[in-house]
Amino acid sequence: MTLTVETARRMVAAAMAHGRDNGMQPLSVVVLDAGGHPLVFERAEGGSPGRFELARGKAYGCLMLGMSGSVLSRRAEAQPHFVQAMNGAFDGRFVAVQGGALIRDATGAVIGALGVTGDSSENDAAAAVAGIEAVGLVAEA
Amino acid sequence: MTLTVETARRMVAAAMAHGRDNGMQPLSVVVLDAGGHPLVFERAEGGSPGRFELARGKAYGCLMLGMSGSVLSRRAEAQPHFVQAMNGAFDGRFVAVQGGALIRDATGAVIGALGVTGDSSENDAAAAVAGIEAVGLVAEA
Amino acid sequence: MTLTVETARRMVAAAMAHGRDNGMQPLSVVVLDAGGHPLVFERAEGGSPGRFELARGKAYGCLMLGMSGSVLSRRAEAQPHFVQAMNGAFDGRFVAVQGGALIRDATGAVIGALGVTGDSSENDAAAAVAGIEAVGLVAEA
Amino acid sequence: MTLTVETARRMVAAAMAHGRDNGMQPLSVVVLDAGGHPLVFERAEGGSPGRFELARGKAYGCLMLGMSGSVLSRRAEAQPHFVQAMNGAFDGRFVAVQGGALIRDATGAVIGALGVTGDSSENDAAAAVAGIEAVGLVAEA
Repeated sequence: MTLTVETARRMVAAAMAHGRDNGMQPLSVVVLDAGGHPLVFERAEGGSPGRFELARGKAYGCLMLGMSGSVLSRRAEAQPHFVQAMNGAFDGRFVAVQGGALIRDATGAVIGALGVTGDSSENDAAAAVAGIEAVGLVAEA
Repeated sequence: MTLTVETARRMVAAAMAHGRDNGMQPLSVVVLDAGGHPLVFERAEGGSPGRFELARGKAYGCLMLGMSGSVLSRRAEAQPHFVQAMNGAFDGRFVAVQGGALIRDATGAVIGALGVTGDSSENDAAAAVAGIEAVGLVAEA
Repeated sequence: MTLTVETARRMVAAAMAHGRDNGMQPLSVVVLDAGGHPLVFERAEGGSPGRFELARGKAYGCLMLGMSGSVLSRRAEAQPHFVQAMNGAFDGRFVAVQGGALIRDATGAVIGALGVTGDSSENDAAAAVAGIEAVGLVAEA
Repeated sequence: MTLTVETARRMVAAAMAHGRDNGMQPLSVVVLDAGGHPLVFERAEGGSPGRFELARGKAYGCLMLGMSGSVLSRRAEAQPHFVQAMNGAFDGRFVAVQGGALIRDATGAVIGALGVTGDSSENDAAAAVAGIEAVGLVAEA
């Protein structure tokens, strides 16, 4: 299964709506295809300028290593040098903080990743899950 | 005047609709704010993976130098070393090809830039103008 | 359709055999998946050390822009600044020389790219086509 | 002694077979020559897209410093700033995690390095040793 731009747009809208409905800070959301290339990105009113890089870095790290943002985040806490190494290996596109999620289809295949930034890491992750599940796909956040 | 995400989204939709209505190849469109940071991006079904970098590079070059994509493109033809210098100065985010446009408000102030990629450079530029004018703003493409 | 490592390995072997059978210089061959990430690479006996970067740059450029190595090569001849811009946009992973080829399945979908380097550009391109067609896929070189 | 592509290919196959025979996650394996340049790379079915960078980073770090992955990993734990410095010095191609191994010939000379990624660091390192020893060479992992 391949992510369409329409599905990606709906995930972004659902993640941002989740943020608004729960009183979060303005969120920014990116959907990457299975190769890590942007399909859709939006930055909400009031989001700071660097949000694209943050959202992409969260999603990109998940995708390159095939791990959720939670797993990456725990590993970064335990091994700070791991993050250093990954940032080097992936040209700085690696943000090991919650808010990134693998997107899996019904067969379990990774078909992309979604990254959220703007509120606390836990809230970002919850919004990522909301966005992915809103279109009937499986989130690994 | 500051670009809102809603206005940016409408510009992206209008530019992509212009492409579809005129039988163009799948377009990808980015809107950058006045500081050159992404607000909204979409890559149409069938667009090749590298389209974010191309769309951003077109819009970013316009914004950083305050020049339209047509002016940058002519200068690049005349002075290839100019492009080399700009790529160095702006960390590679500089694509001096038509398809990038400054977005001006009614007072003439630059409030952002829009970049289109996917079809011929001339068609990309036409779609950029269509997207900007669809929301009542002024395009310098 | 997704490229398997087994199919990629057979393409690499067939491209390298084509080179040997035709008396070419030692070839190096990479197969990238649809997102531009390496699946299989081999450098033949006697190939110079930088061949991975050359092979990947050829294949990566094709994939990011959805164009064949021949098209990229002609565009580079006509617009030297285009290559400068693309090298910046894609972090130097862009070699606009023949020898890169899109890999399409029977439906026409791009499922990866193959890059060959080592002999003349024309011979590299011929080996790329031989590798892709050996597994029943469609080459756009 | 110089590594041939045939020997490199057999090491990659043996390391990957070791992973499959021991129920490991899908492995990716690279063999670098004595100068740190790729000879052969393969990513197994189901490996995440970023595995080339990880495998190369492990092997490259070993080779550049003449140390095994275990030694590098312990040093990284003790001195996180060491990894930061090495990433800068080697343009990001430095992953100080087990799974990288020096390849020595019978005289003790370093003739290359092999990097494995995909399972736990300890398992990656065991697969690296298996690959190197399968061709009668000496592993320092």
